[in-house]
Amino acid sequence: MSYCTATYRIHDAKADFQRKAESIAVGMTVGSWTELPQLQQESMRKHLGHVVSVKEAESAAGKRYADVTIAYPDLNFSRDLPALLITAFGKISMDGQIKLLDLDFSENFLSHMPGPKFGIEGIRSLLHAPKRPLLMSIFKSVVGYDLEGLKQQFLAQALGGVDLIKDDEILFDNPLTPIERRAEICRQAAEEAEQTTGKKLLYAVNLTGRTSELRKEALKAIDAGASALLFSPLAYGLDVLQELSSDSDIHVPIAAHPSLAGALYPAPNYGIAASLLLGKLMRSAGADLVLFPSPYGSVVMPREENLAIRDELVRKDSPLRTSFPVPSAGIHPGLTPRILADFGQDVVVNAGGGIHGHPGGAAAGGRAFQQAIEASLAGQSLEEAAEHHAELKAALQLWGGQR
Amino acid sequence: MSYCTATYRIHDAKADFQRKAESIAVGMTVGSWTELPQLQQESMRKHLGHVVSVKEAESAAGKRYADVTIAYPDLNFSRDLPALLITAFGKISMDGQIKLLDLDFSENFLSHMPGPKFGIEGIRSLLHAPKRPLLMSIFKSVVGYDLEGLKQQFLAQALGGVDLIKDDEILFDNPLTPIERRAEICRQAAEEAEQTTGKKLLYAVNLTGRTSELRKEALKAIDAGASALLFSPLAYGLDVLQELSSDSDIHVPIAAHPSLAGALYPAPNYGIAASLLLGKLMRSAGADLVLFPSPYGSVVMPREENLAIRDELVRKDSPLRTSFPVPSAGIHPGLTPRILADFGQDVVVNAGGGIHGHPGGAAAGGRAFQQAIEASLAGQSLEEAAEHHAELKAALQLWGGQR
Repeated sequence: MSYCTATYRIHDAKADFQRKAESIAVGMTVGSWTELPQLQQESMRKHLGHVVSVKEAESAAGKRYADVTIAYPDLNFSRDLPALLITAFGKISMDGQIKLLDLDFSENFLSHMPGPKFGIEGIRSLLHAPKRPLLMSIFKSVVGYDLEGLKQQFLAQALGGVDLIKDDEILFDNPLTPIERRAEICRQAAEEAEQTTGKKLLYAVNLTGRTSELRKEALKAIDAGASALLFSPLAYGLDVLQELSSDSDIHVPIAAHPSLAGALYPAPNYGIAASLLLGKLMRSAGADLVLFPSPYGSVVMPREENLAIRDELVRKDSPLRTSFPVPSAGIHPGLTPRILADFGQDVVVNAGGGIHGHPGGAAAGGRAFQQAIEASLAGQSLEEAAEHHAELKAALQLWGGQR
Repeated sequence: MSYCTATYRIHDAKADFQRKAESIAVGMTVGSWTELPQLQQESMRKHLGHVVSVKEAESAAGKRYADVTIAYPDLNFSRDLPALLITAFGKISMDGQIKLLDLDFSENFLSHMPGPKFGIEGIRSLLHAPKRPLLMSIFKSVVGYDLEGLKQQFLAQALGGVDLIKDDEILFDNPLTPIERRAEICRQAAEEAEQTTGKKLLYAVNLTGRTSELRKEALKAIDAGASALLFSPLAYGLDVLQELSSDSDIHVPIAAHPSLAGALYPAPNYGIAASLLLGKLMRSAGADLVLFPSPYGSVVMPREENLAIRDELVRKDSPLRTSFPVPSAGIHPGLTPRILADFGQDVVVNAGGGIHGHPGGAAAGGRAFQQAIEASLAGQSLEEAAEHHAELKAALQLWGGQR
């Protein structure tokens, strides 16, 4: 017998958690059990969920809760994420204060999740960057720009030596900068910059539109030179990401944007834990890079949640390729040592304002980040490195050092 | 200029809500404003979001919050729900305690939402039931049953005179009861029952599997005789529902299951309000019937939230067809007067245990509900009606009357 398990945190002032757990195990599988005739029980037993564990506790605020793990027979659902999510959290998501903390896939279920096509190693190989942290920059403003406007922005960022540039997730298909024209013009700009920097560069173009058209849009962009895709899986469904990532014609990395995730993970007693939503599920669905709110900046996620996402993206005890963690928002060069301390080298340092807002412009902003990364890797303090690097010095003066 | 607006509830002990609202209006559209040169402001103004209103208040628990409405220029996003959701709630869903309460579509945006293909009037016409409340029953257990087992259950429910029967949402495509075989055998059972009851009956077969296969699966089911579909849009994305509902080959009503909705609506300071998620968005995406947790039973939603969902599904000031509200979970015949008082006649009374658990079996359970509905419509008390109706009497004895 093969099972997938789900772990929930259930807040309830009075519930008998063991009984509640048993009612979930039965209710979300065979429906009823004790009233079944003996003979039917025998034939139904293989479909019956069971309680793996019930751990009662009290929160710091004195609220009573339990972490409950239930095993669901693989036999009951098809090998796709919607089926597992509906089985494990469909109806009971609405049954009181319950948060889905984790899912553990059976070997069989996991064998149907292809995971990232590139992953950390594949992206490193595309960029000829076998070990060091990568640097990504985001367009500052995209809405309302024409192709020439985007190209100028792209070029400024690319000349700073970044490894990846991504569209803003709010840049939808539009007559001014249609996806295939954006892909083409930015490919040209990337090649132009490469002649100066000597560095490879991936451009993640934002994939948008109607669900059934996404594949066609992706192929159009790739044909025109897009070297990566940006996609917001939570606006479309994780299965759509999985279908894109496992499509053999879509042979570029996919960066998953956490758009809408805040509707799901932050409440302590409802929703889906960040480590599952933005960690395990994104990786399982095939995201090569996963963006999520950093604990450092303006849009804040607690550090332990960030590290839990990281763990799910890079853990080695999974047959799937790893995904690059991309902690985002509020990142400036002074934070680099802290990011590397938290994430190690398998991280993408990702900045928008921290690059475009540099007093010397976006190219100087990119260089300041590169200088900060190099200094950190060399065990040098940023202040020390800044003595020999004007761009880093200006960045530290503007935004300060490690906080 | 044409705008869609979004209304948020933002909880914050200290924020300057007006400033926060302005930062959303700028940040989620043009990115920055005050630092733009005059000339660029002129060309960018048409892309700039603006604050419609900021209403500060304090919750009963003494928490400070504001309801903030922002207008987003249609010019900035494509005419699909993922684009609007990413624009209005993508990034800022992660920015502190913020809940999306409502979206108002511009006329132009709305003209791209076809809405329900059948709606309340269309379903009434299929069932030859022009005015009265409808009655739906749910399979009791489905997992592990073979076709003959499902047929027997179907027949028992159908003989009770219900208008609709739906699959359980956890019945996925499986070798024992594949969708086209289920559709076929239940169509036969429906015809068989019709000869006894003289009533039309819709069977909503659960549509599951990989996203890109759903259309094919739906057509397979319809070809085999499925007269309706059950679908869990929140496991797949609302746009997938919209593509199915607007597909001219899918000429049967679609019932939307609220599976996973509890991950989104119940937290007071995060997520998406139930009236928007299960009301306006489901209707816009084309659900002909929408299930949601009733305020009466085991899986409880507050009554005012239920009525707010109802309002969104049936309001007449929209060009879209209306959707049938289906308050679900914990419904037994004794609750019928209360349901009709809350919802009027444009409601589907939906029961699982309240039909199958009837002492006289599922057919008797269906008849008890019919008797309760008829009595309520005639202004008769259930106790009075029960004197002449054995099935209703047994139901009231078991589950009690109106609570």
